[in-house]
Amino acid sequence: MKLYDFALAPNPRRVRIYLAEKGIEVAKEQVNLREQDQLKPEFLAINPFATVPVLELDDGRHIAETIAICRYFEDIHPAPPLFGRDAYEKATVEEWQRHIENEGFLAVGEAFRNGMAGFKGRALTGQYGYEQIPDLVERGTQRAMRLFGLLDRRLAKQEYVAGANYTVADITALVAHDFGVRAKVLATEDMPNLRRWYGAVSTRPSASA
Amino acid sequence: MKLYDFALAPNPRRVRIYLAEKGIEVAKEQVNLREQDQLKPEFLAINPFATVPVLELDDGRHIAETIAICRYFEDIHPAPPLFGRDAYEKATVEEWQRHIENEGFLAVGEAFRNGMAGFKGRALTGQYGYEQIPDLVERGTQRAMRLFGLLDRRLAKQEYVAGANYTVADITALVAHDFGVRAKVLATEDMPNLRRWYGAVSTRPSASA
Repeated sequence: MKLYDFALAPNPRRVRIYLAEKGIEVAKEQVNLREQDQLKPEFLAINPFATVPVLELDDGRHIAETIAICRYFEDIHPAPPLFGRDAYEKATVEEWQRHIENEGFLAVGEAFRNGMAGFKGRALTGQYGYEQIPDLVERGTQRAMRLFGLLDRRLAKQEYVAGANYTVADITALVAHDFGVRAKVLATEDMPNLRRWYGAVSTRPSASA
Repeated sequence: MKLYDFALAPNPRRVRIYLAEKGIEVAKEQVNLREQDQLKPEFLAINPFATVPVLELDDGRHIAETIAICRYFEDIHPAPPLFGRDAYEKATVEEWQRHIENEGFLAVGEAFRNGMAGFKGRALTGQYGYEQIPDLVERGTQRAMRLFGLLDRRLAKQEYVAGANYTVADITALVAHDFGVRAKVLATEDMPNLRRWYGAVSTRPSASA
């Protein structure tokens, strides 16, 4: 088994944190996105969406999507559960993982990639070049700030973003947070409950995976 | 149990088709998005993202997200499986559900809402008003056409979008297709494998749910 990874990109970090929480070790191969290695024909044959992470199984099959890779490991290695325990908790983890991804993680990416000179002509991931749309910088920033503001109010009443337990939704929120702060899209100093949560999740050993 | 629904919106349709495939009946309450009922304080208290569908359980708890609702039913009512059977198939269904949602379903929505006069000042779902960004009409159209082109090539070699079985990924693709065609964002006449697949999934009794 092998994980196509890139140490500096946010989506592979989600899988690395997930695997560290599970105590699973997987061999890694770096796909250098700065050198555009993801656009080489041999990589596009594996993943036409030209993204990492991709998991290669021992029989040569691939799973080419962040959360799909995590779910694969959840199925073959269920403990500790990171996608919820009973039907309601599983649904709630899915619900918040998706809210945080769409309104937080993707919003940060939208603000970042449409504003940075280095992503000119590559404003979306994937094999096709898309021009930057400057209005998306402000829109992405507003969306991410609103999502984290909502999480702050939610975290006044519960320990983790999806409820009482640490889950994959916290991983998405942690990686979106760090990506957003580094990209100067996100500022959470005035969000005390969010800060308390961030102190807890960012000091777990998995956070440095 | 009660499903907050709106007959004309694409996301609730995904849940209705899913429930029809499972043979599950759930009481429905219409939230009229044309009248902006989703922005009323009593609905925002249920779902701050101001979207339908929302599932209300008998104990008053809510699940406020399309795929999270489907997963809840998958857990309490596993047959027939619509999220995959073994670990690899489950991961593949998740992978393609997410690819199709991000590059197809959301791309169609992007092209539609940023171009229609009726969505001026409401270019994104949710409780906040976002202005339309005209460049997203072309970008969303390109993305959706490329995703369906990729599905067409994929469907030359397999029966359904995630593999040999009909799954929730087909539901997302079917609803994205119909939304895209109605919005004049998508044209699939030149995609023979896609047409074969569409003929099969659109004539299942669930498609009219």
